[in-house]
Amino acid sequence: MECELCRGAGGTLLWQDGYCRVVAVDEPGLPGFLRVVLQRHVREMTDLDEAGRARFMGVVFAVEAHARRSLQPDKMNLASLGNLTPHLHWHVIPRWRDDRHFPGPVWAVPRHEGPVPAARIEAARRMAETLPAALAACAQGAEP
Amino acid sequence: MECELCRGAGGTLLWQDGYCRVVAVDEPGLPGFLRVVLQRHVREMTDLDEAGRARFMGVVFAVEAHARRSLQPDKMNLASLGNLTPHLHWHVIPRWRDDRHFPGPVWAVPRHEGPVPAARIEAARRMAETLPAALAACAQGAEP
Repeated sequence: MECELCRGAGGTLLWQDGYCRVVAVDEPGLPGFLRVVLQRHVREMTDLDEAGRARFMGVVFAVEAHARRSLQPDKMNLASLGNLTPHLHWHVIPRWRDDRHFPGPVWAVPRHEGPVPAARIEAARRMAETLPAALAACAQGAEP
Repeated sequence: MECELCRGAGGTLLWQDGYCRVVAVDEPGLPGFLRVVLQRHVREMTDLDEAGRARFMGVVFAVEAHARRSLQPDKMNLASLGNLTPHLHWHVIPRWRDDRHFPGPVWAVPRHEGPVPAARIEAARRMAETLPAALAACAQGAEP
């Protein structure tokens, strides 16, 4: 298949059910960057029915809540773009005032230099470990 | 007030109810760029309760559906960032393969040159005109 999110997980698989999965994105400058990926190849949120949208966003917001509890970031960023890979996936990105792109979006040119605090990398590792338990209430079968 | 989305509409006001508003963003290279802005100053989606999130996303998806019907873009982009203005607002951005940033996010460096097709600008103008009727079913009072 041509779509990379049909062919592979799209990151380190942390959790999944029949409808969507959560993967960790390997971006060393942005610890805690996760993606929520629909298991099926669907292009736009408005191609899902209302129940499907609600279920997908329920997982996105559960991931945001877990990231906030685990990391206490300065801001959360959420985005569904998919221009290169038109297979629904949400970027869930914890942001800090000292991260390389802040206050710009992570896709804009970097504004700062400097290492990521070790404590933040460790907290992101723990967040990934505890994510399955935090999302247990979201797990359902394939249909919304 | 310090927050620009508490102080002003944040764009050309197209529609509002007691909970949120839709404004047109003046970005000449990106016709049809809209924002859905919460009327209250709230920082994160997970600071809203479940009913509030569902109501807000209901308007975001109604705007996306109207933009797709009106403009037939190649892709829709949705994002809630708020690093500079931490007052909940969703960017709803129709994208075309020939737009200046495609396939990058609109916040990345431009990749193309060239004028925006006149027909697209006209379609975006009509989309803004017809948005209130398209969102009539979303209108409610202040509480979710």
